[in-house]
Amino acid sequence: MRLSIRNQLPGTVISVTPGEVMAVVKVRLTGGQEITSAITLEAAGALDLAPGTAVHALIKSTEVALATDGD
Amino acid sequence: MRLSIRNQLPGTVISVTPGEVMAVVKVRLTGGQEITSAITLEAAGALDLAPGTAVHALIKSTEVALATDGD
Amino acid sequence: MRLSIRNQLPGTVISVTPGEVMAVVKVRLTGGQEITSAITLEAAGALDLAPGTAVHALIKSTEVALATDGD
Amino acid sequence: MRLSIRNQLPGTVISVTPGEVMAVVKVRLTGGQEITSAITLEAAGALDLAPGTAVHALIKSTEVALATDGD
Amino acid sequence: MRLSIRNQLPGTVISVTPGEVMAVVKVRLTGGQEITSAITLEAAGALDLAPGTAVHALIKSTEVALATDGD
Amino acid sequence: MRLSIRNQLPGTVISVTPGEVMAVVKVRLTGGQEITSAITLEAAGALDLAPGTAVHALIKSTEVALATDGD
Repeated sequence: MRLSIRNQLPGTVISVTPGEVMAVVKVRLTGGQEITSAITLEAAGALDLAPGTAVHALIKSTEVALATDGD
Repeated sequence: MRLSIRNQLPGTVISVTPGEVMAVVKVRLTGGQEITSAITLEAAGALDLAPGTAVHALIKSTEVALATDGD
Repeated sequence: MRLSIRNQLPGTVISVTPGEVMAVVKVRLTGGQEITSAITLEAAGALDLAPGTAVHALIKSTEVALATDGD
Repeated sequence: MRLSIRNQLPGTVISVTPGEVMAVVKVRLTGGQEITSAITLEAAGALDLAPGTAVHALIKSTEVALATDGD
Repeated sequence: MRLSIRNQLPGTVISVTPGEVMAVVKVRLTGGQEITSAITLEAAGALDLAPGTAVHALIKSTEVALATDGD
Repeated sequence: MRLSIRNQLPGTVISVTPGEVMAVVKVRLTGGQEITSAITLEAAGALDLAPGTAVHALIKSTEVALATDGD
């Protein structure tokens, strides 16, 4: 599958915190950064996400804002 | 400033491609990955973004999807 | 690849309208509806999108709002 | 009301799964596809969403990514 | 039409800056704040947006991040 | 910190409704409007959000849709 989603960052699941309908998943990216994803509980189950699962974090470019230091 | 945005990934601008009202900015994250951001042209100007600018990529956790290998 | 993105709607590209850095792509879904996607020009090129290309429209559930009739 | 939101897909609610602050709503589109929406619990209540409710799924074009087969 | 979108902020268009496929619209909210919207050029045309047009800015709650002062 | 996020609306927290992994925060903007934000429970805790907390609502322009009256 080829995705229009420009940002496909490989990493490994660190934790999956289930809520009633949503789940928050923490991923250690291969670059060492930690990234947080909020998806539906259903999705977390469908992908069998658990600590150690290899994943890609998918982020559409229109969802990426930028910040610089300074005022 | 403290942000509710969980994902604040440091990096350096590689390129800024201006359109008429939008701009696409490529950033090399400190972890080595390349990330693409689509922001307004106005925003790119306001932050004086240019190759070499130190930035943080800001991504709300609800905007991060996940993918695993396999069918 | 398995995606946490719950909405994966099959269809066929009707048109690709390129801008300077973004592109607007119209897709006829298999259900007959027309859907509009705004992605980066780079992404449209990387996927070789053209009228007739078979695609899936990917929409994270947190991006789907709902409306009902009535006031 | 006229919306700038390009994607307004008619359908019928299949299920509403309430969480503590969010709700996941499944909708059968008139084209036959199933679509999942994650909205606030408050919104689900305000719209009196229940199985059988006629709705439109609203999706801004910048939130629609695309995928093609192949590597 | 009743929307699940929790944030419906009334205001008046100040400017519409067209790009090739996107448009950036500035709106003066009734509260006095200025808000910027990036929509497709098609949408801006379909709503006949021009300075003085009365609008509502629609923002899904999952798209609203928060910031506080301090480190 | 300078943000590419064009919409930075000052206000004060009215309420914080915690879920298991998400939280819904209501903010009274300085213009008098009420705005709703859905963020992770973790973020709400990290920012020590409580009624009376001074905040800015941050909204990327690509997340702002528009509506006009009429059909």
